Amino acid sequence: MIALDAMGGDYAPRETVIGAINASKKGVYVSLFGDEAQIIPILNTFYPAWRKKLPIKVVHCAGQIRMDDVPTTSIIKQKDASLVRALHAVRNGEVYAVVTAGNSGAALIGGTLILQRVSGVYRPALGEFLPTKNGSLFCLDLGANTDCKPQYLYQFALMGHVYVSLTKNIQNPRISLLSNGSEAYKGSQVVRTAYQLLEQSSLNFIGNVEARDLFDTAADVLVCDGFAGNVMLKAIQGTMKAAKSWMQEEIKKLSWWRKILFALNRHIFKKIKRKADYQHTGASLLLGVNAPLLVAHGCSNALAIENALLRAHELVKQKFVTQFNAQLAIALKNHSLHYEDSSLLKRTVKSVLRLQ
Amino acid sequence: MIALDAMGGDYAPRETVIGAINASKKGVYVSLFGDEAQIIPILNTFYPAWRKKLPIKVVHCAGQIRMDDVPTTSIIKQKDASLVRALHAVRNGEVYAVVTAGNSGAALIGGTLILQRVSGVYRPALGEFLPTKNGSLFCLDLGANTDCKPQYLYQFALMGHVYVSLTKNIQNPRISLLSNGSEAYKGSQVVRTAYQLLEQSSLNFIGNVEARDLFDTAADVLVCDGFAGNVMLKAIQGTMKAAKSWMQEEIKKLSWWRKILFALNRHIFKKIKRKADYQHTGASLLLGVNAPLLVAHGCSNALAIENALLRAHELVKQKFVTQFNAQLAIALKNHSLHYEDSSLLKRTVKSVLRLQ
Repeated sequence: MIALDAMGGDYAPRETVIGAINASKKGVYVSLFGDEAQIIPILNTFYPAWRKKLPIKVVHCAGQIRMDDVPTTSIIKQKDASLVRALHAVRNGEVYAVVTAGNSGAALIGGTLILQRVSGVYRPALGEFLPTKNGSLFCLDLGANTDCKPQYLYQFALMGHVYVSLTKNIQNPRISLLSNGSEAYKGSQVVRTAYQLLEQSSLNFIGNVEARDLFDTAADVLVCDGFAGNVMLKAIQGTMKAAKSWMQEEIKKLSWWRKILFALNRHIFKKIKRKADYQHTGASLLLGVNAPLLVAHGCSNALAIENALLRAHELVKQKFVTQFNAQLAIALKNHSLHYEDSSLLKRTVKSVLRLQ
Repeated sequence: MIALDAMGGDYAPRETVIGAINASKKGVYVSLFGDEAQIIPILNTFYPAWRKKLPIKVVHCAGQIRMDDVPTTSIIKQKDASLVRALHAVRNGEVYAVVTAGNSGAALIGGTLILQRVSGVYRPALGEFLPTKNGSLFCLDLGANTDCKPQYLYQFALMGHVYVSLTKNIQNPRISLLSNGSEAYKGSQVVRTAYQLLEQSSLNFIGNVEARDLFDTAADVLVCDGFAGNVMLKAIQGTMKAAKSWMQEEIKKLSWWRKILFALNRHIFKKIKRKADYQHTGASLLLGVNAPLLVAHGCSNALAIENALLRAHELVKQKFVTQFNAQLAIALKNHSLHYEDSSLLKRTVKSVLRLQ
C-alpha cells in the first residue's frame, strides 16, 4: 500500500486522484490522504466503480500544507495535514511508502523529522538520473539542501556511490562534483573543500564537471549542493521548454507544404522531449531517511503521479530502501570522514576565548 | 585601439589571431598581446599583407597565464603575461579596452586588481543578456564571484538596473532573483537575505524566479550568485548542445527520403541554435571596474573573438563604460544600503564576549 498526498501539487486533488486511479488499475494499492469531500467526487467521476474494482482507499485528513506555507512550522504545527498524516502512516508501518507533489520543502523536512535520518547521515538528499550521451548520470542533491557544508557533499557522494552500485550494478562508480570549472581551484569555498575531501577518500573521484559537459561526462554520479543542483535541473527543463516553444513559433511561420514536411518527421522531437521530460521520471526518492518518500514536481500531472506511484510500488517490491540503507551504513563506516569543520566561526570563537 | 590577449583561450593563438584579422578588416584597431614568434607566422599565413593593410599591431609578451594556473598568484607574479600587460595598457591609457578568452578567474582578478573597482562597489560582476520569449533578460553575476554575500547580490541588482536602463532605455527595470522556488522563503541563506534587502529597496523588485521559468519571465534583470549563475548558463548551453546531438543521431536513423524532408526545414534549427549560441554574443563585460574588460568563453573560436572585438569597439565608441560607471555611482548613492552583516559569526563573537 502506497500513501499519496492527494492534496499536494499545483493540480491537486484532480490530477493526483486521476494518477492514483491509473496506477491502481495497474495493480498499485493506493491510500489517498486528503479531504474526502474533494477526493470522492473525483473518484466517482473518473471511475464510478472504484470502491468495488480498484485497490484504492481514502484516508480523510482535515488539513493540508499549501505551496506557500513555510515548511518547518507547517510540519510541526499542522498535525492533520495530508502530508504529515501520510508520513506518520509510513512510520507506523500502515503503508510502505509516501508520494507527494506538494510543498517540497515541507516534504523534505517532514521526511527528516518524521521518517528520521539513517544513523550517521547529516542531511537527506534528492537524487535523479539525467540522460547522457552514453547512458545516465545520477545527480544529487537536486534541491533538498540549499545551504551545504563540505561534509554533506562528501556524504552525497557516498549516497550516489551506493545508489548507482545497487541500481546499475557498477562496482566502483565514477564520482564527479558540479563546479564552475574543471580545475581543482574552481568553485565556491564549500565545493573546493569537498573536492579535497573526495580526492583524499577511497571513492572513485574523477574531479569537477561543468554543467555544460553534463551530457558528455564519463561520470556515473554528479554531486552538487542542493541550490546549484536545483538551478541546474530547472535550467535544463526550462531550456527544453523554450526550445520547443521557439520551434513551434518557427513552424507557424512555415508555408503549408513545409508544415507538412515537418509533420512527417515529428516523431524525432517527441523522442527528444521524452528524454528530458519530468513526466516520465515521476518523482525523486529522498535518500538517507528510514522509509521510502518520493517527492514529485509541484507541476505534476496525472501521468507524473501515476509514474511516481508505479516507481514507489517497484521500490517497495524490491525492498530497495532497506537495501540502500544497509549499504549506506556500510559505506559510512568504510569511508568515514575525519574532517574537522574549521570554520571561521569556530576559529574566531576559539581565538576570542584565548584573548580574554 | 582594443587590446586582445592573443594567448588566452583553448584555441589560442590561432583562433584569436584569425578573429583579430577579421575584426580589423571591419575597422577595429587591434593590439595583439602575446608571443610574437607564434603570432606573426599566423598573421603572415592568413593575411600576408597585414602590416600594410590592417590596423593590427603586435605587442610582444614573454609570458602567458594558462587555463590551469591559479588566478591570484598568476596575476600578481606573472608581470610579463599577455593578460597582465594588456590590463596595464588599458589602465595607462595606451588602449581603450581589453578582450580575453583566457583563464577567466585570472581575468576577473586582474580586472579587480589592475583596473580597480568603481568606488563603493564590493565586487565586479559578469552580465549577459539571455533570450526570452518576449525579449531578453540581463543575468548577473554569471561567474565572477563564487561566494557571495547578500549585499553583493543587492549591488548586482543595482548594476543590472543601470545596465538595462542604459541599453534598453527602460525607466524602471523589473529586477528578479534566481532561487529554487518563487516563494520568499526559498533559497540559500544568502539569497533569502538578499530577497529582503531588495524588497525593502526602492528598486522595482518582482521576486524570485526559478531557472525553469527563465525564458517566460517578465523580469528585465535576473540577479544570481556567480556560482549558481554560472551553473545555470552552462546548463542552458549543455542542454542546447545535447538536444542538437540527440537530433543528429535521430536524423541518422531516418530513411533517405525523410532525411531530405528534414533538410528542407533545416533553417529552423539554425535559428534556434543561434538564439542560444555563445559565438554570437562573443563576450561578457565585467561590470563595476574602471575600464572595459570583456571576458570571452575559453572555447571561443575566431568568430567569437571577432564578435567580442566588434562589441568592445562599439562600447568604446559609445563611451559606454564611462556612462555606466557614472550612472552606477548615482545609483549606489540613491539606493545606498543600510545593512549590518549580522552574521552568525558576529553574533556569536558578541555573545561570547558578553558571557566572559
